[in-house]
Amino acid sequence: MRENRVRSIWEAGGAVVNGWLQIPDTFAAEIMAHQGWDSLTIDMQHGPVDYQAALRMLQVVGTTDTTPFARVPWNEPGIIMKMLDAGCYGIICPMVNSRAECEAFVGACLYPPKGYRSHGPTRVTYYAGADYAANANNTVIPMAMIETRQAVENLDEILSVPGLVAIYVGPADLAQSYGQPPRMDHTDPFMVDIIERIVAGCRQHKIYAGLHTASTDYALHAIERGFQFVTIQSDSRLLASAAGAAVKAVKSGQKTGATGGSTSPY
Amino acid sequence: MRENRVRSIWEAGGAVVNGWLQIPDTFAAEIMAHQGWDSLTIDMQHGPVDYQAALRMLQVVGTTDTTPFARVPWNEPGIIMKMLDAGCYGIICPMVNSRAECEAFVGACLYPPKGYRSHGPTRVTYYAGADYAANANNTVIPMAMIETRQAVENLDEILSVPGLVAIYVGPADLAQSYGQPPRMDHTDPFMVDIIERIVAGCRQHKIYAGLHTASTDYALHAIERGFQFVTIQSDSRLLASAAGAAVKAVKSGQKTGATGGSTSPY
Amino acid sequence: MRENRVRSIWEAGGAVVNGWLQIPDTFAAEIMAHQGWDSLTIDMQHGPVDYQAALRMLQVVGTTDTTPFARVPWNEPGIIMKMLDAGCYGIICPMVNSRAECEAFVGACLYPPKGYRSHGPTRVTYYAGADYAANANNTVIPMAMIETRQAVENLDEILSVPGLVAIYVGPADLAQSYGQPPRMDHTDPFMVDIIERIVAGCRQHKIYAGLHTASTDYALHAIERGFQFVTIQSDSRLLASAAGAAVKAVKSGQKTGATGGSTSPY
Amino acid sequence: MRENRVRSIWEAGGAVVNGWLQIPDTFAAEIMAHQGWDSLTIDMQHGPVDYQAALRMLQVVGTTDTTPFARVPWNEPGIIMKMLDAGCYGIICPMVNSRAECEAFVGACLYPPKGYRSHGPTRVTYYAGADYAANANNTVIPMAMIETRQAVENLDEILSVPGLVAIYVGPADLAQSYGQPPRMDHTDPFMVDIIERIVAGCRQHKIYAGLHTASTDYALHAIERGFQFVTIQSDSRLLASAAGAAVKAVKSGQKTGATGGSTSPY
Amino acid sequence: MRENRVRSIWEAGGAVVNGWLQIPDTFAAEIMAHQGWDSLTIDMQHGPVDYQAALRMLQVVGTTDTTPFARVPWNEPGIIMKMLDAGCYGIICPMVNSRAECEAFVGACLYPPKGYRSHGPTRVTYYAGADYAANANNTVIPMAMIETRQAVENLDEILSVPGLVAIYVGPADLAQSYGQPPRMDHTDPFMVDIIERIVAGCRQHKIYAGLHTASTDYALHAIERGFQFVTIQSDSRLLASAAGAAVKAVKSGQKTGATGGSTSPY
Amino acid sequence: MRENRVRSIWEAGGAVVNGWLQIPDTFAAEIMAHQGWDSLTIDMQHGPVDYQAALRMLQVVGTTDTTPFARVPWNEPGIIMKMLDAGCYGIICPMVNSRAECEAFVGACLYPPKGYRSHGPTRVTYYAGADYAANANNTVIPMAMIETRQAVENLDEILSVPGLVAIYVGPADLAQSYGQPPRMDHTDPFMVDIIERIVAGCRQHKIYAGLHTASTDYALHAIERGFQFVTIQSDSRLLASAAGAAVKAVKSGQKTGATGGSTSPY
Repeated sequence: MRENRVRSIWEAGGAVVNGWLQIPDTFAAEIMAHQGWDSLTIDMQHGPVDYQAALRMLQVVGTTDTTPFARVPWNEPGIIMKMLDAGCYGIICPMVNSRAECEAFVGACLYPPKGYRSHGPTRVTYYAGADYAANANNTVIPMAMIETRQAVENLDEILSVPGLVAIYVGPADLAQSYGQPPRMDHTDPFMVDIIERIVAGCRQHKIYAGLHTASTDYALHAIERGFQFVTIQSDSRLLASAAGAAVKAVKSGQKTGATGGSTSPY
Repeated sequence: MRENRVRSIWEAGGAVVNGWLQIPDTFAAEIMAHQGWDSLTIDMQHGPVDYQAALRMLQVVGTTDTTPFARVPWNEPGIIMKMLDAGCYGIICPMVNSRAECEAFVGACLYPPKGYRSHGPTRVTYYAGADYAANANNTVIPMAMIETRQAVENLDEILSVPGLVAIYVGPADLAQSYGQPPRMDHTDPFMVDIIERIVAGCRQHKIYAGLHTASTDYALHAIERGFQFVTIQSDSRLLASAAGAAVKAVKSGQKTGATGGSTSPY
Repeated sequence: MRENRVRSIWEAGGAVVNGWLQIPDTFAAEIMAHQGWDSLTIDMQHGPVDYQAALRMLQVVGTTDTTPFARVPWNEPGIIMKMLDAGCYGIICPMVNSRAECEAFVGACLYPPKGYRSHGPTRVTYYAGADYAANANNTVIPMAMIETRQAVENLDEILSVPGLVAIYVGPADLAQSYGQPPRMDHTDPFMVDIIERIVAGCRQHKIYAGLHTASTDYALHAIERGFQFVTIQSDSRLLASAAGAAVKAVKSGQKTGATGGSTSPY
Repeated sequence: MRENRVRSIWEAGGAVVNGWLQIPDTFAAEIMAHQGWDSLTIDMQHGPVDYQAALRMLQVVGTTDTTPFARVPWNEPGIIMKMLDAGCYGIICPMVNSRAECEAFVGACLYPPKGYRSHGPTRVTYYAGADYAANANNTVIPMAMIETRQAVENLDEILSVPGLVAIYVGPADLAQSYGQPPRMDHTDPFMVDIIERIVAGCRQHKIYAGLHTASTDYALHAIERGFQFVTIQSDSRLLASAAGAAVKAVKSGQKTGATGGSTSPY
Repeated sequence: MRENRVRSIWEAGGAVVNGWLQIPDTFAAEIMAHQGWDSLTIDMQHGPVDYQAALRMLQVVGTTDTTPFARVPWNEPGIIMKMLDAGCYGIICPMVNSRAECEAFVGACLYPPKGYRSHGPTRVTYYAGADYAANANNTVIPMAMIETRQAVENLDEILSVPGLVAIYVGPADLAQSYGQPPRMDHTDPFMVDIIERIVAGCRQHKIYAGLHTASTDYALHAIERGFQFVTIQSDSRLLASAAGAAVKAVKSGQKTGATGGSTSPY
Repeated sequence: MRENRVRSIWEAGGAVVNGWLQIPDTFAAEIMAHQGWDSLTIDMQHGPVDYQAALRMLQVVGTTDTTPFARVPWNEPGIIMKMLDAGCYGIICPMVNSRAECEAFVGACLYPPKGYRSHGPTRVTYYAGADYAANANNTVIPMAMIETRQAVENLDEILSVPGLVAIYVGPADLAQSYGQPPRMDHTDPFMVDIIERIVAGCRQHKIYAGLHTASTDYALHAIERGFQFVTIQSDSRLLASAAGAAVKAVKSGQKTGATGGSTSPY
């Protein structure tokens, strides 16, 4: 069985550097898969990707040792199981706000008797190996999003659900649920305090904590605070920023001093 | 009829900042279309894009005032005409090495009596307006690639073909045809001299000159030398570079000092 | 922020002429987007369109000032939020039969504190503008379908849900739920009476009312009765009717006297 | 072997009513396939359809007894043979201007010794039957487009090519090549005379003649003049016209008196 | 209305030989549709197929008289109704574990007053005929999966739901729910006994029973035991086995004595 | 640079067992890529696959060490170069009948100075490694099809073209060009003699010879005769045969004695 490198990094005490795929295309996914990310998450909630595109992206990510995850659109067993069968080694589930919701989510990720996942690893077996079914429950990572005030209030109960491995903080939704603007990379004490309480809860329950960030500096800051899974922006934001900067540089007429790509001309 | 902004910029003496689309996806194209490029060229030769993907990308680029071009896979009338009908305002054609090849290319871009383009503006009319057919010959830009030693030797003849509006220098192929490594952003005198002779020929024949570059600095340098159409890398290279840099920053643990994307959280 | 023209027309007291997209293709959508409809609704329930096709159709409809809506397959937050992120300015939701169902639907369309929509306007920002998130709650139109006897019986409660802007009558399902044949363009007093009661309820609760029709005459009739949003058939029915009529005309040998399309030959 | 109904109608002295597919979608194709057309031609030249879309459209058209044709983008053996293998019973080839071009085209459509078509009926066998290869040369219809002044001048030579079964007049290109506006449904004596000379040549060489028209009246007129294959507009034009008329009817407030679609409500 | 051949076979006392489609492609589906299966089920749960792919596969299966079914990803009305509108004559629903779940499932398959299926047979009408809506309730087959211990314990209640026509046993999930390995083609007395109890229950309630098998021998054995619907593997397993065997034969150097495909060379 | 395993096998004196991909789908390609084939050829000529499908299939085949080839639709530089950039390590070109045609083909496969291939390894670099461009000319395999009487007559001239590495015999077309039925697995002395002359010519010119076969026995026979590259049928034929046999077994009621797939239940 192919290992889940995210688990290996965690067990070694490290932090996972996660990329975020919102462009529903296999070539963009292949480019991302070659940039050194420890894992890549296909965003099926806010990213414009659906199942058929995600399947093909998963097939391509599988050419490298980057571990594939997906964020599903909603806490529904149909799509969760479908993405696991398609080859995901981790599922990020939005808006897990209560113990019951977390149980439903985790159960969909695990085969009986731990959960109620249906058996049929049609495609994932080609990715993971013929012994997938026997090892899936110890490999797959259910990762519940903590991103509402209600979830924070129910944190202990959510983190107590057997089989839950990790949580993922969505900073924009979290802020919004507290009446704050939907920003990321929070530095105001109010939001920072809430996030630190989530991390503390995770430490207590031996649950790994992940965070979506908008900058590498904040990602490093998050690792320092105890997060072991950090996402930096997304393919779409990285492309927009890089392209916008290139246009601006030429239109403004200001040379950067950076040498051209003479060694990577393709 | 919707104007060809590339012609307008040229007529005003300016230089066009052109983006390059190799990711065969409409969302990536939409992102690129909002970054301020004057024009966007869909690369159907070396980019992994075929007709159906290109059509949908053209429909999306048309939501902005960025002018759409395509580089076709080869000098063949079928695909040239198909891309014009799909909405391209300019066609970049690879490997135009002789007067005959240039005539065949230009003729495919223009309606009789100037050329032999077949009439059937099925989709482009929705982009350009109902008066497209009457104005197409004055709008569409045939842009022949000068990228071989043979083309340089036949430069005068190629640039003399009636209806040719612009040429595009492919620096890697050009170098290769002279026995040099297939690089871009040439600084060695041998290649610089050849490129300057091409620009000089264009000036003499009143043909606009374009160049593919790998950096904004070289693009600015090219504009200073007389190029009026510069491409900077491609969506795929910009994405690869930006993602690679983000991973490296976090893995190396070095903070950049850049503030996070708190104002663009999506 | 790009305006929601449906809201503007309503606020001016007018009626919206809505087209219906069931062909899962961007070229068909582009053709429809240029015919003068005030809005176009992608039918993801009975039309053979899924998310990835709908996304590309939305991108294309966005080239014009026709306002894009979608009818989702069912009252599920995952797909409702996904379509809003994709660029829809209105969501038509089938089978809203109770206050609880209406609250769940409206809540999925609105950001906190008004609802529970998750933040992540990945694609819609390119359509609507960078200030989308701040204005979305005042722009997006939740439109609940009233199409069962149960819904009619719960009409007051449904129409009282805060945040609900409009309802949409599905005449075939409505008839079926009363034991009538699943027809449209009802003229029998029994069904007409039910529909008039719905319109009266809307007037009382200041909710806009929409109706699916099978003919332009009935659409005009509906506007006279107080509907401010009328759909005429669908792209698929319009194509079938027009093509069937053309074949019949030639096969029957009867000339129509209509002059040929000499001015629009493409 | 499934018969070629176009040949059967011709042999019975009748005229084929042909539909034209430009929307690259299987549902639109299925709708068209149920409207009674004798044949449907997928327009791969000016219609925004490429191979993969065309293949799926052919599979769907095959659910009915409408005979499938394709117009290829250009006179190239690769795509001609690929479309025959995909299931086309007729190929319309643009811009056949000389005897040599016609021989190249017809040869690509026929197996040796009559032509040079390569053997490999991978998909067409499922459509036509297991005995396809043995009967293909008597079933497939090569149909050369006569649409330039040069073609008219070489008419006798073109029509003499062994294996050619039919020609197709493209009225817009034909007009354009004589310095006329690219219209259809010609009524001016100059163009009418040219078209009549083409029909006369066909009669002499026992070649069937086809014409693209923009109206059912002109199609009937063409049949009277000797054409045995008439196309009326296209799916895209029929959809645009029908949708545009519906919008106009409601926006103008004028009732048509036509009863609604009460019996076909879907 | 086109008949449902599965019902006809059942009414004649026969057993349906069902194929299983997991390859999301129309050509693979067309190949399968020509091999003599009585029915073909598109597996949207464990097979990597989503709606848009399934729609096109359904259109192609409809070229033959093989009856199309789908297994939906989960017991959700949105996708169940969407697949019926797309042309399925039967729906296999996973994990139906209680009477309430069975009622929800069956209700989604049937029009009022028997169920709550929404009216809008947009595509299925082209497959089934214009009288589809009137006959759908007597044609469509709801087939609930019995594949958990809970379902076995609730068997009587599930089989008593009005409108249920058939059930389908998933042997791997069933085994797993009893703490057995997730195998198929059970021969151990424990699992055989459970399966025989399910068949006995079906006989009592006049419900048809189906089974997924991994071999033709076991399928024959199942028919002998009273199953009237047997699936043999899937397109993906058949392809894997056949290809693996071919490679092994050549690599091992052992001739099989089977004559080559000289009569079916394509 | 990733090695070309076909070259390695040849250099070691072995024979390559090649699979043939005609189903335009990534999951079917992934299944085939895991069955032990030394190489897999995407058939873009007679297989219903076009560029965009082929690209995605190549990305998936690249997850294994099976070497990817493509058979292009025709001897055209545009598609040959596009497939090399997409990741093919070998190109099979149909209908190479003369020295000039072979030179055009080989030239399109090789960078200057050996050929005229354009530089732009956009996607292949991700498959092959960053040093692709420098090593491509020693890695890529141009494989010309010898499948006509004309090619046999010009055999010496064709095999003498510098840079040609291998040829591929198309037995059906070859037979057809000699007035024989288009069969495979020839056993009649007339065709056997022609094929043996081709093999002898290859041996003399140190060109590797490949053959398409319809059975594993004939493939083994071909290897004995000197072929070092044998294809067995195709994914589509393997699927059709396996499915047809399964249906026949159940419908005939004859048990095979083969045990069910109890260990590979998915």
